[in-house]
Amino acid sequence: MALGEFDLIGKYFAGHAGRYPHVVLGVGDDAAILACPPGEQQVISCDTLVSGVHFPLSSAPACIGHKALAVNLSDLAAMGARPAWCMLALTLPEVDADWLDGFARGFLALADQHQCPLVGGDTTRGPLAITVTVGGFVPAGRALRRDGAQIGDVIAVTGSLGDAGAGLAHVLGQRRLADAAFLQSRLEQPTPRVAAGLLLRDHAHAAIDVSDGLLADLGHICARSQCAAQIDCAALPLSAPLRAQLGNEAAELLALTAGDDYELCVTLPAAALAAAQKALAAQSLSLTPVGRILAGSGVHLQRNGQACALPGRSGFRHF
Amino acid sequence: MALGEFDLIGKYFAGHAGRYPHVVLGVGDDAAILACPPGEQQVISCDTLVSGVHFPLSSAPACIGHKALAVNLSDLAAMGARPAWCMLALTLPEVDADWLDGFARGFLALADQHQCPLVGGDTTRGPLAITVTVGGFVPAGRALRRDGAQIGDVIAVTGSLGDAGAGLAHVLGQRRLADAAFLQSRLEQPTPRVAAGLLLRDHAHAAIDVSDGLLADLGHICARSQCAAQIDCAALPLSAPLRAQLGNEAAELLALTAGDDYELCVTLPAAALAAAQKALAAQSLSLTPVGRILAGSGVHLQRNGQACALPGRSGFRHF
Repeated sequence: MALGEFDLIGKYFAGHAGRYPHVVLGVGDDAAILACPPGEQQVISCDTLVSGVHFPLSSAPACIGHKALAVNLSDLAAMGARPAWCMLALTLPEVDADWLDGFARGFLALADQHQCPLVGGDTTRGPLAITVTVGGFVPAGRALRRDGAQIGDVIAVTGSLGDAGAGLAHVLGQRRLADAAFLQSRLEQPTPRVAAGLLLRDHAHAAIDVSDGLLADLGHICARSQCAAQIDCAALPLSAPLRAQLGNEAAELLALTAGDDYELCVTLPAAALAAAQKALAAQSLSLTPVGRILAGSGVHLQRNGQACALPGRSGFRHF
Repeated sequence: MALGEFDLIGKYFAGHAGRYPHVVLGVGDDAAILACPPGEQQVISCDTLVSGVHFPLSSAPACIGHKALAVNLSDLAAMGARPAWCMLALTLPEVDADWLDGFARGFLALADQHQCPLVGGDTTRGPLAITVTVGGFVPAGRALRRDGAQIGDVIAVTGSLGDAGAGLAHVLGQRRLADAAFLQSRLEQPTPRVAAGLLLRDHAHAAIDVSDGLLADLGHICARSQCAAQIDCAALPLSAPLRAQLGNEAAELLALTAGDDYELCVTLPAAALAAAQKALAAQSLSLTPVGRILAGSGVHLQRNGQACALPGRSGFRHF
């Protein structure tokens, strides 16, 4: 079906892949052609963002463009892969030049930052939704997976947790915060931890990105690795703005249960922690130990060596 | 964000990639891991289908699943690539087990037929839309592109043209046909010409799949190859049901302008035509010469050596 004005959308994204040597052919044919580096495996992921579900209706177009790519790059980061290409499927109710200009700016700036050329895609008319597919490369057999955690491993997370959850509560009006700029930027412009993922490949046994909340995502590692996890609530890395705006108890609850932080959660041998922390510190990234991998199943909470309930909730909870 | 019941959708698609040796890791981690065959390049494409735009609201779920993958496999066919993997991003207004069962059946049957394992994807809640990304492989430098047509080449198309356009007119009630079963199946369950694309790689200079109508798609080859095309209206391959139901003039018009046929249009040296036809005939596929590549620009029509207008329309038209 002829799309008319929709064909013009291509102009906002055209020519982006031209200067990358591994892109043999970018936008403009039936498909893109990419070189496969010898000795490497390809890592591929795909995520859809639906308006009002995955980003607030009020989000700036540049933030939506940034986030649509960021959540996908975060999946590559969690595999320890370096980004190589992306495809954008954009469904729009109408052609709005200002919106497209902002969206493309946010999307392509992050793509450039990660040397992840846009090699193709599709534009269609319909309710606003964005599907991005990303590909990356990793030396054969070296990808970080969810199924590699070993009993005795330390569990560690990059950056801080709970910020995006507080930002969402603020944006939705559930919780008015005096100074929400940092928290809201963590929600709307998350930083995919690509550099951390590449460095952690040398140290970690397993990895996942924290998109659905630490408890849920760590639960995926436990399920795939057939082990249990114990988290020390007092060890959770909380940002100063989160503590200041919400207090410790609410901050810990968000750090455990809120999604959209896009930090990495890894498991690694205790003996490897210091070296991993040093490697990340050289890139101004933190890596905080928050618990241990144990025999058994499920994710358990403790504080000062005692099993505990979810902060701010009564009763012991087994996830 | 927790999706609850949406997580269950995975069960309809789980485990599909397990038995393909090039799939190192399929559904269930942050990303899929795939081996890259030495000496090959990767070909990637992505298409979105929106309900009511790219398929009639009345389409059976199995047909929607089939078509969502078929239109993407058709892009690989047009590059001369063999399918290797697919990713499915499915946005649904609600979880409907019957719909999902039918959709998955149609999608996975075609995936199996083309040895194209589903290695990942995403399921989200929102207005019905389906984005599929496919990847394939081709020996390095051997992909069929739009920019390779040469002056003097014969233009040829696989199968027959116009059938899907007639099927659409019937489904939309614009034209009631006495026997539309064949034409409607061509619309709703197109056959991606993957086998033809692989065979034509040895003979053709350029290729495109006919998704927007022969004139429009051949126009893309001319633009990218900086040449003109001349089509002989009398040579267009029309199916017996199309001729019988619509008559020659309306059939020719649809063959030139209607989309969704997903046949391949190639340009090749005149001396290579017979060998290409023989290779395709061994797979019960036809390849019909319909015109020539000339110096100049645009797509031009002729009949019996005389420039002519679009069938059923008055005046000479230059596309």
